[in-house]
Amino acid sequence: MTPVLSQNEVFNYGDYALIYIDKRRKILTRLKQGEKISSDKGVIAADDIIGKEKGSQIKTSLNIRAWALKPLILDYIDKSLKRVTQVIYPKDLGFIILMLGLGSGAKVLEAGVGSGNTTALLAHIVKPDGHVYGYDIREEFLKVAKENLEKLGLDKYVTLRLADVRKGIDETGFDAAVIDMPDPWEALEALHTSLKPSAPIAFFIPSIQQLIKLYNALEDFGGFIDIRAFEIMLREFELSRTAIRPSTYMVGHTGFIVFARKIVKST
Amino acid sequence: MTPVLSQNEVFNYGDYALIYIDKRRKILTRLKQGEKISSDKGVIAADDIIGKEKGSQIKTSLNIRAWALKPLILDYIDKSLKRVTQVIYPKDLGFIILMLGLGSGAKVLEAGVGSGNTTALLAHIVKPDGHVYGYDIREEFLKVAKENLEKLGLDKYVTLRLADVRKGIDETGFDAAVIDMPDPWEALEALHTSLKPSAPIAFFIPSIQQLIKLYNALEDFGGFIDIRAFEIMLREFELSRTAIRPSTYMVGHTGFIVFARKIVKST
Amino acid sequence: MTPVLSQNEVFNYGDYALIYIDKRRKILTRLKQGEKISSDKGVIAADDIIGKEKGSQIKTSLNIRAWALKPLILDYIDKSLKRVTQVIYPKDLGFIILMLGLGSGAKVLEAGVGSGNTTALLAHIVKPDGHVYGYDIREEFLKVAKENLEKLGLDKYVTLRLADVRKGIDETGFDAAVIDMPDPWEALEALHTSLKPSAPIAFFIPSIQQLIKLYNALEDFGGFIDIRAFEIMLREFELSRTAIRPSTYMVGHTGFIVFARKIVKST
Amino acid sequence: MTPVLSQNEVFNYGDYALIYIDKRRKILTRLKQGEKISSDKGVIAADDIIGKEKGSQIKTSLNIRAWALKPLILDYIDKSLKRVTQVIYPKDLGFIILMLGLGSGAKVLEAGVGSGNTTALLAHIVKPDGHVYGYDIREEFLKVAKENLEKLGLDKYVTLRLADVRKGIDETGFDAAVIDMPDPWEALEALHTSLKPSAPIAFFIPSIQQLIKLYNALEDFGGFIDIRAFEIMLREFELSRTAIRPSTYMVGHTGFIVFARKIVKST
Repeated sequence: MTPVLSQNEVFNYGDYALIYIDKRRKILTRLKQGEKISSDKGVIAADDIIGKEKGSQIKTSLNIRAWALKPLILDYIDKSLKRVTQVIYPKDLGFIILMLGLGSGAKVLEAGVGSGNTTALLAHIVKPDGHVYGYDIREEFLKVAKENLEKLGLDKYVTLRLADVRKGIDETGFDAAVIDMPDPWEALEALHTSLKPSAPIAFFIPSIQQLIKLYNALEDFGGFIDIRAFEIMLREFELSRTAIRPSTYMVGHTGFIVFARKIVKST
Repeated sequence: MTPVLSQNEVFNYGDYALIYIDKRRKILTRLKQGEKISSDKGVIAADDIIGKEKGSQIKTSLNIRAWALKPLILDYIDKSLKRVTQVIYPKDLGFIILMLGLGSGAKVLEAGVGSGNTTALLAHIVKPDGHVYGYDIREEFLKVAKENLEKLGLDKYVTLRLADVRKGIDETGFDAAVIDMPDPWEALEALHTSLKPSAPIAFFIPSIQQLIKLYNALEDFGGFIDIRAFEIMLREFELSRTAIRPSTYMVGHTGFIVFARKIVKST
Repeated sequence: MTPVLSQNEVFNYGDYALIYIDKRRKILTRLKQGEKISSDKGVIAADDIIGKEKGSQIKTSLNIRAWALKPLILDYIDKSLKRVTQVIYPKDLGFIILMLGLGSGAKVLEAGVGSGNTTALLAHIVKPDGHVYGYDIREEFLKVAKENLEKLGLDKYVTLRLADVRKGIDETGFDAAVIDMPDPWEALEALHTSLKPSAPIAFFIPSIQQLIKLYNALEDFGGFIDIRAFEIMLREFELSRTAIRPSTYMVGHTGFIVFARKIVKST
Repeated sequence: MTPVLSQNEVFNYGDYALIYIDKRRKILTRLKQGEKISSDKGVIAADDIIGKEKGSQIKTSLNIRAWALKPLILDYIDKSLKRVTQVIYPKDLGFIILMLGLGSGAKVLEAGVGSGNTTALLAHIVKPDGHVYGYDIREEFLKVAKENLEKLGLDKYVTLRLADVRKGIDETGFDAAVIDMPDPWEALEALHTSLKPSAPIAFFIPSIQQLIKLYNALEDFGGFIDIRAFEIMLREFELSRTAIRPSTYMVGHTGFIVFARKIVKST
């Protein structure tokens, strides 16, 4: 079977395709013989896409233009993954990835795997030489995360662990950590032990009560410095020939991002 | 000589160290025998850091606590690179990297290399299997970019080209492109030719006149779909035990980010 | 009949009351004998409110607590006025009012009356000695605006005119102007004539194409200086004992506000 | 002597004038015989302005164009008032004024007068029939506030009180209150007593610790409902024929605004 993130430039059966009709109509589908892809703008036959160059124009049964595109990893994550928890948004995760200095080869700890969306993007960044260790205490979420990672062919870069990071972390020597759990202050001892000295950590938390509690706990604990907190606001624009303007509604808040770096605790 | 992004966990001569005294006092230095690292909080002898675990506490000559940390890639970029042009901020570049689906192995075009900061971060993300082709028409900038990339040990993942992308691009088969030039609408034909079908492109532009001109040009050209425009606002917080609050001043604007995907032009 | 913005502190028949059950359940009603005020939290009899101090607690038929409050002008505008057009938001209008220096006694021009919401708030600010002249070319909107202003008892401070400000303005000597129309650049000559020298003007426009066109027209026209443009973003917080955080969704854009001041045109 | 907010349309000696050279060069001055107004763009003689229509063009000694404008109330506040404390910004105060429903005739309580800037703007809005009662515990600030209010001719609409609102408020029957003090939770009892039932109150506080403490105190106290919290972000644009864009730097935070309405406490 063709791997999900196929590098081929021509569509084969088994490939995923992103059918783009317009901004509001994007369908992610796996091409199967005889399959019909339906929308309110008409039907497209998967068979008509086979052999076509990725990015080609096609027509629906109502003679509406559409395009069959090679999906990007965010298309898979948005359109094909099962989602059982709130996820970290690309605006936040992109910033986290850069601030943590992630790249191929990094060994990353993730606490709070949820549906595995963040796990997948971290694995995509650290592959082929790095690895993500994802912890969660909710077995049903880990099951979903596992399926999602397999769907993306990224499971080989990830080890999922059903365990509570507040009680300890099996591995050590992490280059960085991404922590998305409601009470990260309970895990500082275990996080400190598992990280390499100097290694950066990113916490994602939604409320100001958590922000205060985490900041105070980091200061009290004493094993982290360079504590910084941020929030990111993303505005999309409505685009048209006559009127370009920021969209009327936007996501006003996802969470606060707190960074720190592990130091060797003084004795 | 120890490579810049050293993986050792103990400091040796030749290593870079980030000396962290407090939030406002961070010094990036390469450790040399007999060297003194000066600050208004006192002097630190490089020799005293050698052999210490990365992340260790040290004292300045004024008995002020400091820490010697392994630098992250953003520390190098902020503190050690020569900067001759405005750069794309991490808040913007992190989002671009995720939206373009970049990861190890990607072949990326960059137009508008400038000081090479973005080039370095792109190389860091696509290494070891990917490659960045960076174009600029300003020879003096490319010289700076080359030095910066060498300093980071990332030059082997980058090919710099002194050429005008508006007149054509030598390579084809790019998985993605990051365009930071004042008149990207002049380069659409060349960009379209050089990108793989379906490949995404990100444009970074500061003004609304450019946003309008680029959007209209993309629509007129017809070889790109899924055109979306964003802007990202980043707020940092002042942190203290008694008063946490967003910083009084913030960067209010860096630029607009416009995304599009290449399609096969209909004939 | 009791005037709408009644100053009495005890509820009488004919008074408006804002029934506050919780943040999502606010009902504005005029108290009539025998009337029942219904909600999914139970029924309240208007008769039970009569004679009670404004701000008193009452109970619904389901024994749920509620309060009968004296409404504020924004309650009337949000809950009782007929709305036929997009309105200028309080975040924007409050800033406009301060930047224009409005207060009691000002003679204000408004172009683009719409439903009269802005007209009402301007009248509320300039009363009892000032006056608002509201222009619109849409007769059906002026009819709604008239009803709304009468409902609020503010009609005596407003003169509504069915006329096109692009073709001229009847009055002169305005202390300030608030312009909410799609093509304000067509009205600069008339606006300039009608304003007192030095008088400030505020334009409200949604798109960046309009922003560019208006700015260029103001510069070309030459009769205005101190041209400034702003946009205001308002975030509300979700409040609770355990988790305070900015609301997930917010209004990301209403419009751009452009200010200028009339000068005596040089000859 | 001509009153400060003169309504004349021609400049006389004693009038204030705002000399506008360009966006960065605005000088507020009181016109005196023989006075020279200096700037790095040349000198202007006050005598040359006398008799000119407000808004007229003048020339500096270096033949640079300038304009003599009638100042707006914010010009006085920005350019001529002594400022001894942080002030509430127009973006915040404009919103507060609308949300509190202020207009001519309102009786308003202000706690935390500081330099009197907010006091002045509140007086400007509630005059001629309303009144502001301004409390502060810092005698030296009240002295400055008094001078500032006299300078603006607004002192007759204000009563300043050197007293601690946490210990009680002399007056009752307030239509609204604006509270800008570090520990407003200590004043809830006194505020509740002094406000009319149903009257709205606005608190201005900078930190998230204060936001939590105030919210919890309001809930505990039980005499206020409809508690809402906001923050307002204002972006100015750089305007030019070729490149309009949000300014690079902006004010990222002034404070949080918390609203509530007094209810009759149940017994």
